[in-house]
Amino acid sequence: MSCSVFINGNPADTIDCNDRGLQYGDGVFETIAVSQGQPEFLHRHLNRLQAGCCRLGLPFYQLSELLSEINALCSNRDSGVIKIQISSGSGARGYARTPGLIPNRIVSIKPSPEHSPSLQQHGIRLKLCRHRLSINPSLAGIKHLNRLDQVLARSEWSHQDYHEGVMMDADGYVTEGVMSNLFYVKNGQLKTALLDRAGVSGIIRSVVMDYAALNGMTCKEQRIVIDDLVQADELFMTNSVIGIWPVRQFETRRLTLGPVTVKARQWVNNAFDRYSQ
Amino acid sequence: MSCSVFINGNPADTIDCNDRGLQYGDGVFETIAVSQGQPEFLHRHLNRLQAGCCRLGLPFYQLSELLSEINALCSNRDSGVIKIQISSGSGARGYARTPGLIPNRIVSIKPSPEHSPSLQQHGIRLKLCRHRLSINPSLAGIKHLNRLDQVLARSEWSHQDYHEGVMMDADGYVTEGVMSNLFYVKNGQLKTALLDRAGVSGIIRSVVMDYAALNGMTCKEQRIVIDDLVQADELFMTNSVIGIWPVRQFETRRLTLGPVTVKARQWVNNAFDRYSQ
Repeated sequence: MSCSVFINGNPADTIDCNDRGLQYGDGVFETIAVSQGQPEFLHRHLNRLQAGCCRLGLPFYQLSELLSEINALCSNRDSGVIKIQISSGSGARGYARTPGLIPNRIVSIKPSPEHSPSLQQHGIRLKLCRHRLSINPSLAGIKHLNRLDQVLARSEWSHQDYHEGVMMDADGYVTEGVMSNLFYVKNGQLKTALLDRAGVSGIIRSVVMDYAALNGMTCKEQRIVIDDLVQADELFMTNSVIGIWPVRQFETRRLTLGPVTVKARQWVNNAFDRYSQ
Repeated sequence: MSCSVFINGNPADTIDCNDRGLQYGDGVFETIAVSQGQPEFLHRHLNRLQAGCCRLGLPFYQLSELLSEINALCSNRDSGVIKIQISSGSGARGYARTPGLIPNRIVSIKPSPEHSPSLQQHGIRLKLCRHRLSINPSLAGIKHLNRLDQVLARSEWSHQDYHEGVMMDADGYVTEGVMSNLFYVKNGQLKTALLDRAGVSGIIRSVVMDYAALNGMTCKEQRIVIDDLVQADELFMTNSVIGIWPVRQFETRRLTLGPVTVKARQWVNNAFDRYSQ
């Protein structure tokens, strides 16, 4: 079997215990869907990775090495999920990043998760999570390695009961799904949560917003409360690996697949096709 | 040289890339000072470790193995810092903890940091950090592995300029030091920050509060603003490795060593002595 993990360019499956990703979550990550042997939306992922490194004060370099690792992992595989993890490096004890610290880069591929295609077609059951997102404008939007909030929220249900959970921030504003971003439609208006205090700025979220604008439909980023979701005409979730999941049930409330969700799904599929040419 | 790291009971220095501490910071840790070959305040540390595991929904077991690893690391060493790290285990891709996940336990020892003893005697220079702590009541108090806030705050100064930084939460309330808890004294009253929305509930903090109560001095936990620190009569920081650091300068303001700080230092030293008998 071919290699499925590169650590700093070398095939490996273990990492130094002093890695600061392990010690403190001092780093960022990306998960990229692979289809027909191609990483989807690679440029957007690399841009976000670079932006995240920049906001955390980490150097972003060795892009050509990263690209060849991604290519090597994609070769001979039709589908899968690539994960890139960059930490600040392996350091001495303590929070201080010692001068000259060299980042650690882990690039791996795993099989695609086994979600039924009917979820994309007919929609998912969505839970409201009790666990809330930490609020911090300095970390909002970044796909950093501090993901305890998502882990704890995800532990609230088993996969038989729900397909995804929606999270509020510590102040009670609806922000995102556990592993996805959230959009809703009310009176033809497309809306998503403002991610200035919590949440991850997702790649498919950015695709939907860009294509909405290209198609003359503005998408408003705003504070969302539970009542907005309860009264929404349409509700859907976005994620790099799943694309778009319409919501057919939010807790006890049933929703039907609406025209804006269908349109958004087309935008994302078309964008996929364009990128895989 | 004798072993300095045990992973799940075995001498090792690398860990599986799928460890969920590395992937998501899904775990807790402790740092324990060793002096005269003994781990200081071991019971308090183990209690907090267990409480942290409980709050994160992680099993806490194999206590006897953990204790023998700590003993093995202390043997033949006069001083040092033991770090215990427990993650939820090595899992598949995704935030969900798969059923039956077995926690990973990393127990290591490193040399004590080289802080001048004069800092304990005469005090430190304290900076006010720009980076703020994330607010989340569900994670407040726990010494979990999501420590980006501390890393980013610590990157604001080099060790020549300051010895420690004080952090506000995202709403602007003074909460703790980057690697320590904070106490101040006003008109003979001892006060520390309420840790119900952010911060780590420190071991030396608990020792100071317990001994204050034993000595008929209440310590009030409350919301603290910058002005409280500016107008404080005394200011000191607590940490398991350093004990107590009086503050002699907070940004541009100079403070002198006061009687309550001296008393607190005696309490902690006496408690150290009692534990090392």
